[in-house]
Formats: sequence, C-alpha cells, structure tokens
Amino acid sequence: MSNRLGKVVVVGVGLIGGSFALALKAAAAVERVIGVGRRAGTLERARSLGIIDAAGALDAATLSDADLVLVAVPVAQARSVLDSLAPLLGGTTIVTDAGSTKQDVVASARVAMGARIGQFVPGHPIAGTEFSGPEAAFAELYGGRNVVLTPLPENSPADVARVRGAWEACGARVCELGVADHDDVFAAVSHLPHLLAYALVDHVAGRSGGEGLVSFAAGGFRDFTRIASSHPEMWRDICLANRSALLRELAGYGKVLDQVRDMLERGDGPALQTLFDKARVARNRWLDRSGG
Amino acid sequence: MSNRLGKVVVVGVGLIGGSFALALKAAAAVERVIGVGRRAGTLERARSLGIIDAAGALDAATLSDADLVLVAVPVAQARSVLDSLAPLLGGTTIVTDAGSTKQDVVASARVAMGARIGQFVPGHPIAGTEFSGPEAAFAELYGGRNVVLTPLPENSPADVARVRGAWEACGARVCELGVADHDDVFAAVSHLPHLLAYALVDHVAGRSGGEGLVSFAAGGFRDFTRIASSHPEMWRDICLANRSALLRELAGYGKVLDQVRDMLERGDGPALQTLFDKARVARNRWLDRSGG
Repeated sequence: MSNRLGKVVVVGVGLIGGSFALALKAAAAVERVIGVGRRAGTLERARSLGIIDAAGALDAATLSDADLVLVAVPVAQARSVLDSLAPLLGGTTIVTDAGSTKQDVVASARVAMGARIGQFVPGHPIAGTEFSGPEAAFAELYGGRNVVLTPLPENSPADVARVRGAWEACGARVCELGVADHDDVFAAVSHLPHLLAYALVDHVAGRSGGEGLVSFAAGGFRDFTRIASSHPEMWRDICLANRSALLRELAGYGKVLDQVRDMLERGDGPALQTLFDKARVARNRWLDRSGG
Repeated sequence: MSNRLGKVVVVGVGLIGGSFALALKAAAAVERVIGVGRRAGTLERARSLGIIDAAGALDAATLSDADLVLVAVPVAQARSVLDSLAPLLGGTTIVTDAGSTKQDVVASARVAMGARIGQFVPGHPIAGTEFSGPEAAFAELYGGRNVVLTPLPENSPADVARVRGAWEACGARVCELGVADHDDVFAAVSHLPHLLAYALVDHVAGRSGGEGLVSFAAGGFRDFTRIASSHPEMWRDICLANRSALLRELAGYGKVLDQVRDMLERGDGPALQTLFDKARVARNRWLDRSGG
C-alpha cells in the first residue's frame, strides 16, 4: 500500500475538514477529495476554492470505494453522520473524526458501526481559529500542531498508522491518548478556559457601565477573552459532551479561586506572591518545552 | 509656556518609566531626562541605552528645578518615594505617576505632599509587556494606547493639561476618570483577569499529570494564560492595593460561574448557548469599537 491516499471523503468542509483537504492536496498525499455536507451552497464554495474536487453525499457511490473518511462536523451531529455512513462503507475504508471530545463520539460510533467499529479510528486535531466555514480553511493550519489519536482496542495497527500518516502529511505531530484520558486532559486545558473566558465577558458586560469599561482594557484582557469569540453552538456541544470531566475541573478551579479570595480577604501578600510565582514558573516551563 | 518640557525626572527606569523617557525624546518633547532608582547598575544601564541623560537622586539638586517628575515604581514603593520627594520639589514642579491603582497612591500622596497635593496629578498608562527592566523599554510602547488621568480637585487645569500633553507626545490617547471609578474599572478588566489566569495555571499545574497536560493545549490556553507570566511582586501589590474592588469583582464573577455550573449540571444546552452567544456578541462589539 502506497502512502498516498486514493479517495478521501470529507464530511463537513469548514475550517477543520477544508484545511485537512487542502493540506493533503498541498502535500500531494491524496488523489481525489470528495466533499459531503448539508448545504449545496457550501459544497459549491468549497469546490470553487479548490478544497474538494467534487461534491458527494452519504451514499454508496461516495463511500464504498473511499480510502479514508474524515468526519469534521460539530460533535452533536457526529452521531447522525456515523449512523448514515456506517452501512455504506467499503470493507477497507477507514473512518476518522475531528471531534473535540472523544468518549461521546466513540459511544456513538460503537452503536452506529457495530461489528465494524475497528474501522473507526478516533482523532482530534488541536488547531483552529475563531473563524469558520470553507473560506476560513487553509493548507497550513496543521503545520507543527498536535493531533491526538485515541485508538480503540479493535483498531488494526495498520489502520491507525494510515490515519497517523495522513495527519503527518498535513504537517501535524501525532500523539496517542486513551479515550477517557483525552477528555480529562482537554477539560482542563481547553474546555475550562473557554468556559472561564465566556463567563468573564458575560460578567463584565453585565456589570453596570460594562459597555464602556472595556475601552480601558489592555491587551491582556483581549488575549484572555479571545476564546470567548469562539463558535457558541460548537462550544455548547463540547461542554455538554464532556460535562462530567468539565464539572470536575470547574470544581477544582473553584477551590483555587476560594484560596485566592481568602488570601485577598486577609491581605496575605506572601501567599499571593507564592501563588503567582508558582504560576509564572509553571507557564514559562511549559513554553520552554513547547518551543513557544 | 512651551509644550516642550525642560527637565523631566523619571523615578524607576524600567519598562514603564524608561519607555516614557524614550518616547519623549523621540518626539523631541523634552530637553533633559534624569533617572532616579535604587540600584546604580540599573541607572547606568538606562544611561548607556540612551533612556536617561544622567543619573540623579531624590535630592534638591535633582528635583528643585524639574518641570515634571514621573514616579514609575511598583505601587507598594510609591509611598516612600513620594515621602522623600515632596519636601524637595520646586514650586512649579508637577509630579505624576504610573501606578495601576489610584486610591492608594492618592492617599499616600495626600499624606506625603500635604498642602502641595495640587502638584500631584495621578495617572495610569494602560500599556505594558510581560518583560521588565530598562532593556524592555522602547519608545513606541504608548503609541495608540490609553493613559487614564484621575485629576484631583486641587489640580490646576494647566497642570493636568501639561501631564496630558506629555503623554500625548508619547503617542497615547489620554482620558480622565474619577479616582474610585478608575479602581472599580480596572478591578474588572485587568486585576480580575490576572487573578483568574494565575489561578488557572496553578490549578492545571497542581493537577495530577499537570506537567504533561499542557503539551496538548492549543493556542487558546497560551493566550488565556499569557498574563500569568506577569511580574508576581507587582501583581501582588496591585491586588492588595485594590483588594476591596477586586473582592467585589471576584464575587460577581463567582456568581456567573455558579450559573454556568448549574447549566452544565442540568445539561441545559439552550442556556449555555445563550450565555456564549451574549459573550461573543459583546466581545466582538468591543473589538469593533476599539478598532481591534
């Protein structure tokens, strides 16, 4: 089997799916990309932008001879897409996804695919911008970014390697985590920060005079709240899909905030400085490690 | 009186004071800048970097013929600096400051300056980076950034205009707020976000496996926590100086977080989406307004 993919089907031709298609094409790692989506207009825009070669559908003609199917739809829609495509897949077609949560997607895939669950290799590219739609897609999105695969016991090593190879062709670094570990990790480093940023903007906007306040804010506020411009529907679904891990993280974070409030109330400068110092040291160590 | 300043004294020749000096020089808005600081080595570095023309001290020779003195030291040190310089000032010398909190500095200034409090025009430039020291200073730091003045009833309009003119020469936009309003506003848009970011990094770092987690984080986490690399000693002092307003903001934010937790616990997607939508709309409106 050559490393080059023949036919790739991308379900959802927005920022994530569209950039995957563009990156594979830029690397000459695919022969043909077929796009599938709910809206004909979106598919036509993706075609005219060179993201896909043709529009397809969730039907046998599109799916039965595909090498790889990437499901890149909001997590709440993954279930119905998997239900539709499962019975139509060819025997060697591999399905992967780009969902930000993995336990819910894997549960849906197990129901949808039944005995063919081995053909589903779950994945999560850690990349994105605050923009969406095919116009936001670009071939370099995954360059140097992490993609986490959460392989299932039923996956063959060859199929996992095939998905890994596709992401590596896009320029990504691929690593593996367990399905539940993935959701715990991302509750802490992604879902919780989004929730905190949305809550901060709501708090400030809801404050008397809130509208005028932000004109005084420095760059820190802008950076801190950038993720509060993310897609509300997508983040609603992510938060719900991963809510038990997210509630645990929120509770843990609440305990740290309680400590900070106590330090402030008793005017405990040394304790505040120790906490700030620890945070700065930890963050700078992370940046050093990741070359950031 | 020409718009050009004759002798400017900068107490604290780090990022904030040093950039003020460089910007005034770049705009040819000053004849001579004298630096004052606790460490001779720092002053010598500032001189060799062209930030100051000479090193001075908190003495009559340095202060009695100064047109403008900028106190750019950490807020906890402002009191002792004001105590030292107050008796040595010339009758027409204006003193201003760059402190991130204003009620505490004004209270200190009233004690230190007594009947000469009219010579003190409180200020707060909304600019900075996560770096510090004279090497971090640059002439463009204040270009297009806000500087808030919180004039006192005792200030003459001419003195306020003189301080405003100096900051405008640095490229800043100058606006005015009441002393207490200033501290309320910045508790919400600056001090609270810093506290939240420090707490998040501490929470993640303290979590089991926290060290490894962050390698999976996307750019959102990096942006969100950038301000947790800020100077711990400085932020300890700011939090303590403004702790009553900050505790109020923390309590208000805690209520929003409680609502979010309740929405998550009952799996209320519409409520989450409404909250996220409101936040995105508010933030985008702020960005539109501020040209960001």
